[in-house]
Amino acid sequence: MDTADVLAWRDGCIEALDQTVLPHQVRTLRIGTVDELIDAITRLAIRGAPLLGAAGALGVALAVRQGKTERWDAVRLTAEIDRIATARPTAVNLAREVRAVAAHLRGEAGAARGGAVGIDAEVADAAAVEAAAVGVLAEAEEISRRLSVRGAAFLRGACGADREGRGDRRLRVHTHCNTGALACLGWGTALGVIRALAEEGALDHVIVDETRPLLQGARLTCWELDQLGIEHRLICDGAGPFLISQGLVDAVVVGADRIAANGDVANKIGTYSLALAAHRAGIPFVVAAPESTIDPDTPDGAAIPIELRAEEEVTGTAAPAGTRAVNFAFDVTPAELITVIVTQNRVVKPQSF
Amino acid sequence: MDTADVLAWRDGCIEALDQTVLPHQVRTLRIGTVDELIDAITRLAIRGAPLLGAAGALGVALAVRQGKTERWDAVRLTAEIDRIATARPTAVNLAREVRAVAAHLRGEAGAARGGAVGIDAEVADAAAVEAAAVGVLAEAEEISRRLSVRGAAFLRGACGADREGRGDRRLRVHTHCNTGALACLGWGTALGVIRALAEEGALDHVIVDETRPLLQGARLTCWELDQLGIEHRLICDGAGPFLISQGLVDAVVVGADRIAANGDVANKIGTYSLALAAHRAGIPFVVAAPESTIDPDTPDGAAIPIELRAEEEVTGTAAPAGTRAVNFAFDVTPAELITVIVTQNRVVKPQSF
Repeated sequence: MDTADVLAWRDGCIEALDQTVLPHQVRTLRIGTVDELIDAITRLAIRGAPLLGAAGALGVALAVRQGKTERWDAVRLTAEIDRIATARPTAVNLAREVRAVAAHLRGEAGAARGGAVGIDAEVADAAAVEAAAVGVLAEAEEISRRLSVRGAAFLRGACGADREGRGDRRLRVHTHCNTGALACLGWGTALGVIRALAEEGALDHVIVDETRPLLQGARLTCWELDQLGIEHRLICDGAGPFLISQGLVDAVVVGADRIAANGDVANKIGTYSLALAAHRAGIPFVVAAPESTIDPDTPDGAAIPIELRAEEEVTGTAAPAGTRAVNFAFDVTPAELITVIVTQNRVVKPQSF
Repeated sequence: MDTADVLAWRDGCIEALDQTVLPHQVRTLRIGTVDELIDAITRLAIRGAPLLGAAGALGVALAVRQGKTERWDAVRLTAEIDRIATARPTAVNLAREVRAVAAHLRGEAGAARGGAVGIDAEVADAAAVEAAAVGVLAEAEEISRRLSVRGAAFLRGACGADREGRGDRRLRVHTHCNTGALACLGWGTALGVIRALAEEGALDHVIVDETRPLLQGARLTCWELDQLGIEHRLICDGAGPFLISQGLVDAVVVGADRIAANGDVANKIGTYSLALAAHRAGIPFVVAAPESTIDPDTPDGAAIPIELRAEEEVTGTAAPAGTRAVNFAFDVTPAELITVIVTQNRVVKPQSF
């Protein structure tokens, strides 16, 4: 799958694969307004922390274009850009990339001053904003490649695949949700690490959990692994800890939506139980994420805003009519349960942040 | 819901609520042959460890009836009864109640000798077998009531709801899968404890997880709690450990399919992750089960046969065509993560078994 098929800037619009209809339909959304972008983000047609960052970056370019046409004043342009930045609360990448690109609104001078917006759309430097936004996409791909190779090297070492006489040891890796090309551009984060292991001949197979309620594991990760020809098995979310306890998993690798300053990690709901099980089993629990997911302004996990999504995602059609639900989209894994965090630049114990 | 609506012996047939179509349809199956019974058990139309025991007991009566009509010899009758006993491997109750009732095949004399079968259907004492089987049902209801009250008393004490000045403290209890009247006859096991807490005014609300892949929590437990007027919220399986970590749960109560001699517990897949989370959070993790679920012949969890069910239950319609799955129906929670086991007779720390 080509990165440009997942998310691209074409003729002043955002084109994005609609991730809600995969794997049974491959449909591209053409997004021409801020409203359309926010709709795509909130219903998870565009999802995954790094991809949200890239989409947010393009969203600023989109807002400037729309603002020029509709003659938005500074207040309106600022408000529209803020709506994009806050369309989902947990992944820090979205707000961060929106702010970074918005800083280019007056071109180099604005960026240097770190100034966000506060100017009429008409006088905004659209070309500078678009260049900055497209740059975020290109950089994301490069980051994911470096991160993937670094994570694979760590895992080979940690699981003894590199040890003398065990050169042929191939790993069974559990992952959660979707963290591949669909979520991240390029190779991905956790799934990028898995892909690197596969290319290096160090992967036996992947355990993929469903990732209820929206089934990103079953729908998206299985689809990506299938396309890559990587052996995998799907399990229910509740089965992960048991498989780990039975010695059927060598390592757990997940992505992150936000990493607090103390190393606590917010990631898709269900991550914490895998960390508990890995900790008890004594196998590596690795978080793979770009540096931009680390948020020094969030002191710890308790300070991370956890998105509470619609109850209907959980009740679906199975529960009796009128059933109420609680639908936290993410959970928090405390730093002490995490073996290492792998970024494009480093492999670091979260306690040493 | 009346116990007789869930499972009954009527006119030489087993009548059972078809639990696969709840909550949207309430349909009763009329089961007149061993084949039909095994089909109902394997596709989980009849399910839940204590209910499986009761259905197995009735199954022996059914086999004798069918055997008399079809003139089965001793070999055939024994084989048919064995098929019932082994229709599902994990819940010890099924095999245990089948063997207990089969001991009545020659009436009191056979029972006294503990003799299983080995006689022609034609000469079997059908009346004694039917009386023994129906007795299992009546006893199950009484057991569940005693167990429920005992479990509620333990939880009130353990969570401080009984402490002076905290008499109005009401508990938030997490449960998994379905362990109520549908699974157990009468009040149930874990859900019976919850029902007793509610009757005593000591329950705030219940957290119910979906229990993928067959959604017994979403479909059956929500339905039962709705009928009982007990406040509840549905969550995804992966969310349970997070809610526990956030102080949103006072205790976890689950049932059991088999309790090994050392106190390890096999229960519906997903149980283990709740035990890990409860242990870390320091809240009670209670297993509620009749004494008959304790199997002294199984030394520990590693010796419990864990049913591996069809992959299609997991892959469903969401995953790409051809996706492979691993579908363990149960997991094993080690004794040291269990606060107490509550039976109709006692509240016991599993380590002291």
